[in-house]
Amino acid sequence: MLKDLVTKSRTFRRFYEDVTISTEELKELVELARYIPSTANSQALKFRLCNSPEETEKVFDTLGWAGALKDWDGPEKGERPSAYIIILCDLSLGKNKLYDDGIAAQTIMLGAAEKGYGGCILGNVQRNRLAEALNIDTARYSIDLVLALGKPKENVVLVPMKEDGDVRYYRDENQVHYVPKRNLEDLIV
Amino acid sequence: MLKDLVTKSRTFRRFYEDVTISTEELKELVELARYIPSTANSQALKFRLCNSPEETEKVFDTLGWAGALKDWDGPEKGERPSAYIIILCDLSLGKNKLYDDGIAAQTIMLGAAEKGYGGCILGNVQRNRLAEALNIDTARYSIDLVLALGKPKENVVLVPMKEDGDVRYYRDENQVHYVPKRNLEDLIV
Repeated sequence: MLKDLVTKSRTFRRFYEDVTISTEELKELVELARYIPSTANSQALKFRLCNSPEETEKVFDTLGWAGALKDWDGPEKGERPSAYIIILCDLSLGKNKLYDDGIAAQTIMLGAAEKGYGGCILGNVQRNRLAEALNIDTARYSIDLVLALGKPKENVVLVPMKEDGDVRYYRDENQVHYVPKRNLEDLIV
Repeated sequence: MLKDLVTKSRTFRRFYEDVTISTEELKELVELARYIPSTANSQALKFRLCNSPEETEKVFDTLGWAGALKDWDGPEKGERPSAYIIILCDLSLGKNKLYDDGIAAQTIMLGAAEKGYGGCILGNVQRNRLAEALNIDTARYSIDLVLALGKPKENVVLVPMKEDGDVRYYRDENQVHYVPKRNLEDLIV
């Protein structure tokens, strides 16, 4: 059931960093994105795969984590993502494909969940630094989103949103991560 | 396997219009969107469900279909979508959530494929007319995307993209619909 996969595919920010993800597995995830719909069938998105320790460290240094957790700077060494898929837009084929980016990101994250991985869709990225670190030609490609991937090492629990409408996620003393979600009735206009 | 669902979930534009989709089924699709990731967990997207003949006709009149098929104005009466889910952004909760829109759209379309339905994510929408037709308060909501849904009545075939890179889909004399797709190797930078 898709619902099982969608509910399993939570945003995770801490990982068993020693569990690696092979290039073959990353390609299988990108393969899913071959079949997604894209604006006017443009298929303008491209994908950069990173799973070597050298590259993942460079990527990590450009990311901003968990805006709502003010006293947490992101995962420590040993709990960081072991791979990334960077979603680029090939500017020779189109630009501003933000809907397509979302479609691709979710499809890949669901594929990762199916494989027992998990991660985080990151928009808080120092794009110029990342382009420089990975030699991405910014005349040809925009850096749209970074998908952080790994074997999740945290417990994420969905809870009903309180009446005050506070959407901020939080952790308890055991580092269980709670995410308030709106009710179905509140989503339907 | 997710891959089966992703490949099954093609863009369809002709339907068995007499196969209706119940409000309960539409709610099950929106329920999937409760669990998707959203920018800073804002969950700013809302959903308007349409499945009555009166409303679907109004929605249809505001949509632009299949830009690449210059001699086709969209599905004829009897082959039109039997339902729509309109993705709105609640401006009291956020705005410009285009990544979230894509994530929601794809999740719902995959859910529709699982139920044996299919459809089309439409961005070519006369938004002011649609808001007026459905009494959507544009001070409160932006109309982001329209998901057309129904029981597909056409055969969609993926074909490898030719060397000229032409992404335009086309139909043959039997109205089989062909969609050129890039190879996996061309997606990886």
